[in-house]
Amino acid sequence: MQETHFGAMRGRGELALLTEIRARAACGGQISSRRGGLRLGIGDDCALVAPRKGEELAITTDLSIAGRHFRLDWHQPEAVGHRALARGLSDLAAMGARPVAAFLSLGLPPALTLAPGRRQGSSSSWVERFFDGFLALAEAHSTPLAGGDLAESPLAVADIVLVGAVPRGRALLRSGAKPGDLIYVTGALGGASAGLARLGKLAETRPDSPNPPRIPKKLEAELAPHLYPQPRIRQGLWLQRRGLASAALDVSDGLSTDLAHLCQESGVAAEVDAALLPVHSAATLDQALHGGEDYELVFTAPATARLPRSIAGVKITRIGRIVKVRRGKPALTLLTPQGPQFLEPHGWEHFL
Amino acid sequence: MQETHFGAMRGRGELALLTEIRARAACGGQISSRRGGLRLGIGDDCALVAPRKGEELAITTDLSIAGRHFRLDWHQPEAVGHRALARGLSDLAAMGARPVAAFLSLGLPPALTLAPGRRQGSSSSWVERFFDGFLALAEAHSTPLAGGDLAESPLAVADIVLVGAVPRGRALLRSGAKPGDLIYVTGALGGASAGLARLGKLAETRPDSPNPPRIPKKLEAELAPHLYPQPRIRQGLWLQRRGLASAALDVSDGLSTDLAHLCQESGVAAEVDAALLPVHSAATLDQALHGGEDYELVFTAPATARLPRSIAGVKITRIGRIVKVRRGKPALTLLTPQGPQFLEPHGWEHFL
Repeated sequence: MQETHFGAMRGRGELALLTEIRARAACGGQISSRRGGLRLGIGDDCALVAPRKGEELAITTDLSIAGRHFRLDWHQPEAVGHRALARGLSDLAAMGARPVAAFLSLGLPPALTLAPGRRQGSSSSWVERFFDGFLALAEAHSTPLAGGDLAESPLAVADIVLVGAVPRGRALLRSGAKPGDLIYVTGALGGASAGLARLGKLAETRPDSPNPPRIPKKLEAELAPHLYPQPRIRQGLWLQRRGLASAALDVSDGLSTDLAHLCQESGVAAEVDAALLPVHSAATLDQALHGGEDYELVFTAPATARLPRSIAGVKITRIGRIVKVRRGKPALTLLTPQGPQFLEPHGWEHFL
Repeated sequence: MQETHFGAMRGRGELALLTEIRARAACGGQISSRRGGLRLGIGDDCALVAPRKGEELAITTDLSIAGRHFRLDWHQPEAVGHRALARGLSDLAAMGARPVAAFLSLGLPPALTLAPGRRQGSSSSWVERFFDGFLALAEAHSTPLAGGDLAESPLAVADIVLVGAVPRGRALLRSGAKPGDLIYVTGALGGASAGLARLGKLAETRPDSPNPPRIPKKLEAELAPHLYPQPRIRQGLWLQRRGLASAALDVSDGLSTDLAHLCQESGVAAEVDAALLPVHSAATLDQALHGGEDYELVFTAPATARLPRSIAGVKITRIGRIVKVRRGKPALTLLTPQGPQFLEPHGWEHFL
């Protein structure tokens, strides 16, 4: 950043935008005297972050690109902003970290910074509505926007950086799962994938429109897992504080792909019981196994650990167990009424 | 990231690329037992960074977009990688922070990840050569690549995140300059702007080529300030440790623009003496005043402070002084043999 580079997008509209972002981020200017967290936000060459005593910082970045991670003709700008931030927050959740600050690098075509005509039913520009969605989720998780960069770009791109804090040595890692551990998942799986398919159908009804379709009231609940996924920050924090989980990660690319990562980093294999999977009511088994962007947490815990049925209002479901790697055998097995099957990772390919 | 999202770019070539990045970054996998710095790199949902006792972290992000911050038909990939990292390191230098870790989000057209034909005179892909430039500078400043994201994109984009550490409350800020302070600059000004103009002329001699021109040996020195700017990490650290500077920032958008930022954040005005400016030998006064991307440090210090002629081999030049804001008067004045002139900020507009 910081202000300088936000200033790289010139002109009256852009300067007004910068001023508005800084005001809405509400964390610029003066050094904070707080003992931990964000000490200096937007306005200098860097932001300053101080962890509390005994803490270390967890840092993650996620790139969202128009046409790949979102589509301007499918997704309302509020959803694009929400989803960009949710991806980063979900990485913090997977480590059991509390959010401390977010940074956003935004490349935008000039048209998206201008107020649209009345036809589009809103007096706000695309980027203002993007920040509406972004900042609403940021506020829900007490995460100040501490900096970033802003530039003109022929293609809309948003790179999100999340900084979280976790007591040193207590972060939930992918690498701690052991044979005999049980595998759990928060919430339901496949809802985001099902919602994306439904959104695609809705958009197809008006193929020539450059703007996303309005979401009918009756479809809001069905599309919510895709448009407004909820990062499991509270659940990750709960697991980290209790020290119950031996490994964890978030379901961003699909259960089959992400569980394969956990197995690889831990040097183990896994059996998933198809009958136990919490398949979202709108989703198929295939979407629950391979659909991406649910942003639920998958975690493992020793069989002796006593897990509650829900954590902070979100259901916890046991879906399988960790086993030893066997030479020549696949890392993931799906147990079905027809017998065990090789569960091949089919990571989500976004829009391409 | 981390690995998961690097995995979002699929196919054999891309998987090989991910493996290579992780190997070259050489900081993935196991938790480090080091007392301070990067504790966990590429391979989990987040990287883990622990500052040393008494330190806080400085964090900055900078977005580089093809056609705006670099051109595929002008810049060799090594220079694109070097410059992307240099921008972030320079922000750390301006705060007096030591580099701890870098994160890189990279969106690339598939063609840039493939090895080119023999015609292009190299057996390495664009992205490999990008990392050659990136990692050479990273190594020079002991900055591990700790994570990031990788995605397919029709437009080449690189968002760099730098994390540095600085003793708590000791960061060099923009906001501390006081009337009476003297203004200093490291190195020479205008060289990057002059180099860019020269590079443009070189590229114009072969307007239809999609690839950047080779740099003749005799032009290497003239183009170096633009293609391979040196972030002033050592000089920033020196100033921070001695506690001599009252304010500092880096010259990324041009002296006139950046000094105006410093004045605004400090609530002061400035007089710059044209005769004192260390104009780069290849540059004009105009380029020295308004040209961007020199990545030198501008800093202020009380008149009683004794500054050396050079810090870690880089010349230090006094260029003016801080004065009180006067109502109705411009913030920046240029002292010339013809008398004082209003120095209007003409920030650098990149390529657009």
